[in-house]
Amino acid sequence: MNTKLKWLRDKIKMQNMQGFIITNPINVKYLTNIDAEGILLITRKENIFITDGRYMEHVRQILTIDDEIVVMNFKDICLEDYENFFIFCENVGFEENYMTYAKYKEYKQKFKINNFEETEYIIEKQRMIKDEKEISNIKEACRITDNCFEHLKSYIKIGMTEIQIADEIQKYFKENGADGLAFETIVASGVNSSKPHAIPTNKKIALGDPITIDMGCKYNGYCSDMTRTIFAGEILESVKTIYDIVLKNQIKVSEQLKDGEMIKNICKNLEAEFKLNGFDLIHALGHGVGLDIHELPTVSSKNDINLKENMIITNEPGIYLPGQFGVRIEDTVLITKNGSINLTKSDKNYIIVR
Amino acid sequence: MNTKLKWLRDKIKMQNMQGFIITNPINVKYLTNIDAEGILLITRKENIFITDGRYMEHVRQILTIDDEIVVMNFKDICLEDYENFFIFCENVGFEENYMTYAKYKEYKQKFKINNFEETEYIIEKQRMIKDEKEISNIKEACRITDNCFEHLKSYIKIGMTEIQIADEIQKYFKENGADGLAFETIVASGVNSSKPHAIPTNKKIALGDPITIDMGCKYNGYCSDMTRTIFAGEILESVKTIYDIVLKNQIKVSEQLKDGEMIKNICKNLEAEFKLNGFDLIHALGHGVGLDIHELPTVSSKNDINLKENMIITNEPGIYLPGQFGVRIEDTVLITKNGSINLTKSDKNYIIVR
Repeated sequence: MNTKLKWLRDKIKMQNMQGFIITNPINVKYLTNIDAEGILLITRKENIFITDGRYMEHVRQILTIDDEIVVMNFKDICLEDYENFFIFCENVGFEENYMTYAKYKEYKQKFKINNFEETEYIIEKQRMIKDEKEISNIKEACRITDNCFEHLKSYIKIGMTEIQIADEIQKYFKENGADGLAFETIVASGVNSSKPHAIPTNKKIALGDPITIDMGCKYNGYCSDMTRTIFAGEILESVKTIYDIVLKNQIKVSEQLKDGEMIKNICKNLEAEFKLNGFDLIHALGHGVGLDIHELPTVSSKNDINLKENMIITNEPGIYLPGQFGVRIEDTVLITKNGSINLTKSDKNYIIVR
Repeated sequence: MNTKLKWLRDKIKMQNMQGFIITNPINVKYLTNIDAEGILLITRKENIFITDGRYMEHVRQILTIDDEIVVMNFKDICLEDYENFFIFCENVGFEENYMTYAKYKEYKQKFKINNFEETEYIIEKQRMIKDEKEISNIKEACRITDNCFEHLKSYIKIGMTEIQIADEIQKYFKENGADGLAFETIVASGVNSSKPHAIPTNKKIALGDPITIDMGCKYNGYCSDMTRTIFAGEILESVKTIYDIVLKNQIKVSEQLKDGEMIKNICKNLEAEFKLNGFDLIHALGHGVGLDIHELPTVSSKNDINLKENMIITNEPGIYLPGQFGVRIEDTVLITKNGSINLTKSDKNYIIVR
């Protein structure tokens, strides 16, 4: 059995649970490496993955005997089987933040579960701390992202559309070893950059536009996430002022990131700095990155946990002036014992494309 | 107020609900055209969309005064506001098949809801029947998909990789008026075609390969879905036999699709035909298509509802021989009073690329 499944078995035992139904496919992938629709049952004696005909072949190819995971097809399971899976289990865990209310009711009845226990992001909390292999996958995703940005510096020309640039990013990722996009790329120029979550449009890059590019790829399922705001032809003074505030504060944040620091304190410092300049931070300062592009920990002033070694998070302050423009600068960052390491390393000086 | 919101208000009134919290973003888009994270509240007097800073500008651009939707920012809402939204409402609906168990508990408490009522896919069931505008969007998505397939017939050459072909499909969609992919394209050649949900690989198309291409795009948010299995250089006799069985039965199904017919009967007929030839249908025969690529109705032998005029579903039988190959043929189909119309119209004769 792999170390992650072993960890989970020990963990639920400590919490007096004798079983667990895992339905979030990202958690299933984290624990088993299986990339398929289905549910993972941790029963007293076995690990069981139940899927359907579409995935049986894929799952059998991925698993070996050492995984100690029994694979079953939903259609071969009768009502009595369901009742037997957790027959001597008093408490069975589930993911209350993933499972719908309807499935909760259905499973409680179908599996005849006495106490169906909320597990409070038990697996997601473990996923916050990356192991060596996970770090190396994210590093590689970040390296490809940096290379892509380097390519964009010469590729982007005034007159191109946002969609054209977004397509080039996707093409670059695919041709350079990534699995694909970690999320829908944002390319937002001129007034579009004032929307933090803009969708690329057919608007052409025009002289004087700031261009916010928020992009990331996946490598072996693990994500990268980086944003740079660059400039078409020239930098307007009004934009430069905002850029400088964002960059200064992004660096200030990165100097505070360190094992043991409280997340909310770092966020509050940033918000106070922004306020001094007359601006609000209208989204979280960052988020964990891993198999999901957004995972724990949320990096916001509401989160009172401490940073820990081998967490990987984003540091992405931004200022947005509706109807005018916006600036965001973001890195993917590894937390270490003594500080932090930016895994995305692209230039943050003024970059002007022509 | 638009007709869809009016319909919902009447509908919940008939079911003795005085309020509704809509959290599924596809349902929010269906009802309001808003494409953003957030929740839609139907209260006694108002329609309220609550979102966050990232989406305020986008939402304000989309809505007009005629929509009669109040927009609020989560961060401006205090505990007391939450308690007031449904203050004289005895029963408030929610989407039990979308809302997580955790959110259910949180909202029940936060909004001080007496009876938080399951609504049994109330909106999804309405979404099954498409209006004129929805049909015209799906028709356009299907037309682009047909044109893409026409292009592929001359584009695909022996020696290309599956990924190369999948990328070309995505490029074609983007350059020809689609919003983008409706789902991750499947290009599965040779032995890969034996997996119904194969992911495109770097495998090169080889002489004698069957190639299953399952693709669809979105137009104004609405999806198309089509599969064809074509052949590289030649058709092996063993493959031809299977192809003929699949095609014959796909056509037989399309002849039975009609307003008033029971879905499960049509599926059972197909399964019986397959069984006679010694094969199983290992996935559903089809699914509804609309804003979601997979929506109601499920076209399977377990669904005992009747087809209705203006439903749009897929008809996609397939036979898969593990370790050998597979064949699937799929159309997107509009149900009419007297029969059905294939909205995807690409050739289903043997197509050989070289």
